[in-house]
Amino acid sequence: MIEVLRLSHRLLRDQRISTHVALVARAFGASKMYYSGTKDKSLEESVIKVIGKFGGPFSIEYEKKDIELIKNKKLSGFKIVHLTMFGKLIQNRINNIKRTKNIFIIVGGEKVEGEVYKLADFNIAITSQPHSEVSSLAIFLDRYFNGMELDFKFSDAKVEIIPQDMGKLLKKI
Amino acid sequence: MIEVLRLSHRLLRDQRISTHVALVARAFGASKMYYSGTKDKSLEESVIKVIGKFGGPFSIEYEKKDIELIKNKKLSGFKIVHLTMFGKLIQNRINNIKRTKNIFIIVGGEKVEGEVYKLADFNIAITSQPHSEVSSLAIFLDRYFNGMELDFKFSDAKVEIIPQDMGKLLKKI
Repeated sequence: MIEVLRLSHRLLRDQRISTHVALVARAFGASKMYYSGTKDKSLEESVIKVIGKFGGPFSIEYEKKDIELIKNKKLSGFKIVHLTMFGKLIQNRINNIKRTKNIFIIVGGEKVEGEVYKLADFNIAITSQPHSEVSSLAIFLDRYFNGMELDFKFSDAKVEIIPQDMGKLLKKI
Repeated sequence: MIEVLRLSHRLLRDQRISTHVALVARAFGASKMYYSGTKDKSLEESVIKVIGKFGGPFSIEYEKKDIELIKNKKLSGFKIVHLTMFGKLIQNRINNIKRTKNIFIIVGGEKVEGEVYKLADFNIAITSQPHSEVSSLAIFLDRYFNGMELDFKFSDAKVEIIPQDMGKLLKKI
């Protein structure tokens, strides 16, 4: 089981990035995204809308006490992977990480507490360059699933996109 | 040569997503990002700041007439790759795309004109699910460079991150 925690969400300023983190989590094979920071109904609604249309399973949940959540996940057998550009390069750690089936992935907000680095079983960088929590999560999950996530199917979708060389084809199910 | 065009940038609303698209473009091996829509000094400044600190080569340029820009790039020998969830799956097209060295990658704004689909040599989907232009660009470039982009080095950087199992180490150069 793969779950994601997005730290320190802020209203308005983070809404689109957090939405994109959630959509990547869903599209690339995680089953749930938690977020801490400020509770945001419109973030939750936009994710729930996508699930309603394109299927699941996926859920989003607000959790104020993020450090406690991480500790609890750790106690219940999840390995904690914190994505940070300061961590060890994914290409040098992914084989180790793949040995575990329950992974709790943390992606940062602007400022990440030192305790998160300590609680993490793996602090992992997707390049040592600044880019985005959205792309870091995508590349991490892509490596974890060996690219098979590109073919994942979803249940209870109301629509399905039929790939086209040109234009758009959306099939109702 | 790999260049990126981010369509229809809007002030405030798109600032962080467009910044993340630019940072992914840079970190994953593109040499330039154009953007259309509204000219945005603070977007440009935040990207230039990263280049100044972490190195290049990379540049960002505003271009109001995006369709003309695409046509000109096509005339000068670039293959046009438009990333859209309605396109053909990357895993079925990447080998074809790899044959060409000059690629002009287009990522959308909220609404993409039909002409973009027609001008594109390849309309490419990174999954047929909604997620993000940030993650789509990252996965596309990752596939194009066979993962080698994770080890790219940059010139004229003022700092270098030294990967750590815990904590942060930033070396001045």
